[in-house]
Amino acid sequence: MRVLAATTNEGKLKEIKRIMEPLGFEVVEPKRKLKVEESGTSFLENAYLKACAYYKEFGLTTIADDSGLVVDSLQGYPGIFSSRFYALDFGGKELPEPSATEANIRKLLRLLKGIEDRGAKFVACVVLYTGDKGLFAEGECKGEILEEKRGEGGFGYDPIFKPEGFEGSMAQLSPEEKDRISHRGKALRKLSELLGGLGYTPQICP
Amino acid sequence: MRVLAATTNEGKLKEIKRIMEPLGFEVVEPKRKLKVEESGTSFLENAYLKACAYYKEFGLTTIADDSGLVVDSLQGYPGIFSSRFYALDFGGKELPEPSATEANIRKLLRLLKGIEDRGAKFVACVVLYTGDKGLFAEGECKGEILEEKRGEGGFGYDPIFKPEGFEGSMAQLSPEEKDRISHRGKALRKLSELLGGLGYTPQICP
Repeated sequence: MRVLAATTNEGKLKEIKRIMEPLGFEVVEPKRKLKVEESGTSFLENAYLKACAYYKEFGLTTIADDSGLVVDSLQGYPGIFSSRFYALDFGGKELPEPSATEANIRKLLRLLKGIEDRGAKFVACVVLYTGDKGLFAEGECKGEILEEKRGEGGFGYDPIFKPEGFEGSMAQLSPEEKDRISHRGKALRKLSELLGGLGYTPQICP
Repeated sequence: MRVLAATTNEGKLKEIKRIMEPLGFEVVEPKRKLKVEESGTSFLENAYLKACAYYKEFGLTTIADDSGLVVDSLQGYPGIFSSRFYALDFGGKELPEPSATEANIRKLLRLLKGIEDRGAKFVACVVLYTGDKGLFAEGECKGEILEEKRGEGGFGYDPIFKPEGFEGSMAQLSPEEKDRISHRGKALRKLSELLGGLGYTPQICP
């Protein structure tokens, strides 16, 4: 089954392909990036908004992922604001230097300095959309926030997130290990199971 | 397949049963009403919030519907606020007398007094939820807002909504006619088609 990935985030694209292609999907990259206002109040809503926008523009069955890091001691922040946390008033703004990712990590480590409760989870919601109907699935990966960055793999907050049951950070896992335990891996496999039952019917795959 | 309806709105319950039972679903009513804050910014999000709340409370595969009336000349209002339009600052509040429904209709007719563009549509989003995954489908019914109430059938804004291609109001249609053209009928049938392909697999029906 051919699906358009509603993202131009390279880290996300790579993982979506890596997880979905062995499940039998052909993952197509969008020809250009769309500016989608992620105005929803949840991962589901923002994934849906992205899926809708790409579906309308390109007319293909679309897979979108919205995901983020939910930190216990920050009342769930950065949550749906994970990719633009540096720019939020909450906790004080940071300049996106040398990159937005670095600024996000710097801000989070600053806010958690001296905080004992470092519990957190990565959450993903994926939506497969075909115009006026679709499927969705959620995945979580529990863990805690490290005191400093470790590892070079993954992307986003991976270097400061230690998954439950592991010693190192998410960025120190091999791609296969990460996909096996990650929020995105779990959500995409659930979606695939759900879809597998559908076969490739005209209803879901026009 | 057995599904819990995440609503205690009698009109909605009646229609969900009427539409879904012939499609092979056993629709179960909740034992008690839950107070769910519909804090989302879309029909999908609010349907999802209701489905989640009822699923968590009762542990059954849950069907939720969020729907409303989208009026062209009111920039889409009342939209997701349809059931509590009377209480919104937008357009001025009304007292919920003799009922919230009457106050909603009174307010809408007041705001559209003398307005030539009376185009509107009913929109529904239905969500079938089983814990961490689900399906959704959307349905629309286009039409226009009448100058005054007509008919006794249906519920909500039905008496002032004239569906495209009909002379009378939604409240003047027989239940069968309404279900055939209504936003809710279309959305639930799409969901059923989508689910039909799934068979009753353990993934969707634990």
